[in-house]
Amino acid sequence: MSPSSYPSKLLENAVNEFAKLPGIGRKTALRLVLHLLKQEKEQVYKFADTVHHMRQEIMYCKSCYNISDSETCSICADMNRDHSTICVVESIRDVMAIESTQQFSGVYHVLGGVISPMDGIGPDDLTIAPLEEKIKNGSIKEVIFALSTTMEGDTTNFYLYKKFDKYNITTTTIARGVSIGDELEYTDEVTLGRSLINRLPFEKTI
Amino acid sequence: MSPSSYPSKLLENAVNEFAKLPGIGRKTALRLVLHLLKQEKEQVYKFADTVHHMRQEIMYCKSCYNISDSETCSICADMNRDHSTICVVESIRDVMAIESTQQFSGVYHVLGGVISPMDGIGPDDLTIAPLEEKIKNGSIKEVIFALSTTMEGDTTNFYLYKKFDKYNITTTTIARGVSIGDELEYTDEVTLGRSLINRLPFEKTI
Repeated sequence: MSPSSYPSKLLENAVNEFAKLPGIGRKTALRLVLHLLKQEKEQVYKFADTVHHMRQEIMYCKSCYNISDSETCSICADMNRDHSTICVVESIRDVMAIESTQQFSGVYHVLGGVISPMDGIGPDDLTIAPLEEKIKNGSIKEVIFALSTTMEGDTTNFYLYKKFDKYNITTTTIARGVSIGDELEYTDEVTLGRSLINRLPFEKTI
Repeated sequence: MSPSSYPSKLLENAVNEFAKLPGIGRKTALRLVLHLLKQEKEQVYKFADTVHHMRQEIMYCKSCYNISDSETCSICADMNRDHSTICVVESIRDVMAIESTQQFSGVYHVLGGVISPMDGIGPDDLTIAPLEEKIKNGSIKEVIFALSTTMEGDTTNFYLYKKFDKYNITTTTIARGVSIGDELEYTDEVTLGRSLINRLPFEKTI
C-alpha cells in the first residue's frame, strides 16, 4: 500500500510507530490503530499514558539488574529468600520463567545478555563486574548458571566459571536432559547423550 | 504465567494494555513492552504521544465518514474527482484498498459496517441516512456497492438497492469473478458460475 493512500497524516504517523515494534508489519499496525480508533478516547489515552509512564518510571534493581518499581527489586528486598545463592540469567524474562516454577528461593543476577563476539557483545557489556563485586564481598555460597544452551551461552558459562574460580564458591549449572513429556526417539542426540552421562540415582528423582 | 510473577507493577500495567489489542496475547504483549523498555526514552514518549494525539485529533469526514485530519477529507475536497459517483464501502480500510488500485476517480461513502442482525447491527447503526440525504439532493448519478460478498454484505446491498429504487440513479456493484492469477480448478463453483453468467465481450477486456 503506497504511503499516499493513508487518508490521514495522524493515522499514518500512528501506523509508523506501531510498525516499528518487533513482529508488527504495516498491515497489522493499521489493524491495531483502527482498533484503537474505535475505542473510547479515555481508553486510548490510558494506553498511551501507561506506556509513557512505564518507560519514564521503571527502574532496574541496583543489586540484581532486574526490572523494578523501586531501587531494590521485590526479590532482592525479600529477607525470606536465600541471599547466598545467586542464579545468573540473561534477561528479565528468564527471571519471570524461573519465578513461575516456584522452585527457587535464592536471588538473581541479570547479565543483560551473553558474550557474543559476532554481535559485538563482550564481557564489559554485561553486568559481570557488579556480580564479581558481590562475590568478592564474601557472603555468596553458590552461583547457579542458568543461561541458554547456545554456543554463546556456553562461552559465557565458561568465562564466568574461570573468572570466579579463585573465589571460595560453588558454581553449578541447571540440569540439561530430556524434557518431561518428551519421547526419547524425538530427543536430539546431544541432549540424550548428556542425560545419560548425568544420570541420577532413581531414588533421588521420586 | 501467574500475574504475581511480573517484577514490576508498571511493567504489568503496560502488558495489560498491549494485551487488550486484537491478536496480541500476554506473551507477545510482554515481548513488545520489553522491546520498548530497551528503546531510548524519547522514542517511547514519541510512540505514546503519537497514539494519544491521533485519538484526540482525528476526525471523520462530515460528507463521507472517512478518517480525516480536517472536517472534509482530502478525497471529498478534491474538485478533480467525480462527485456524482459514490462508491459505498464498509470501512476505511476498503477506501484505502480501492484508492491503492488508482482505478476510481469518484468519491466514497463509508457505511461503518453492514446490516447484521446476528451482531445487533441494523440499518440505523450505519450511515445510511446521510447517504440517502446526498442522493435526495439530486447531484448523484451512480452509486456503486462495494461491500463484502458475505450474507450480510448481500443483505445490505439489497436493502440499499430497494431503498434507493425511487431515486433516479444508477446502482451498480463491483464485478465478481475469477481472481487474476487464479487457476480455474481451484476457484469455488459459485464464483466460477457467476463469472460465466456475467461474461463480457472479449474485446472489452483487452
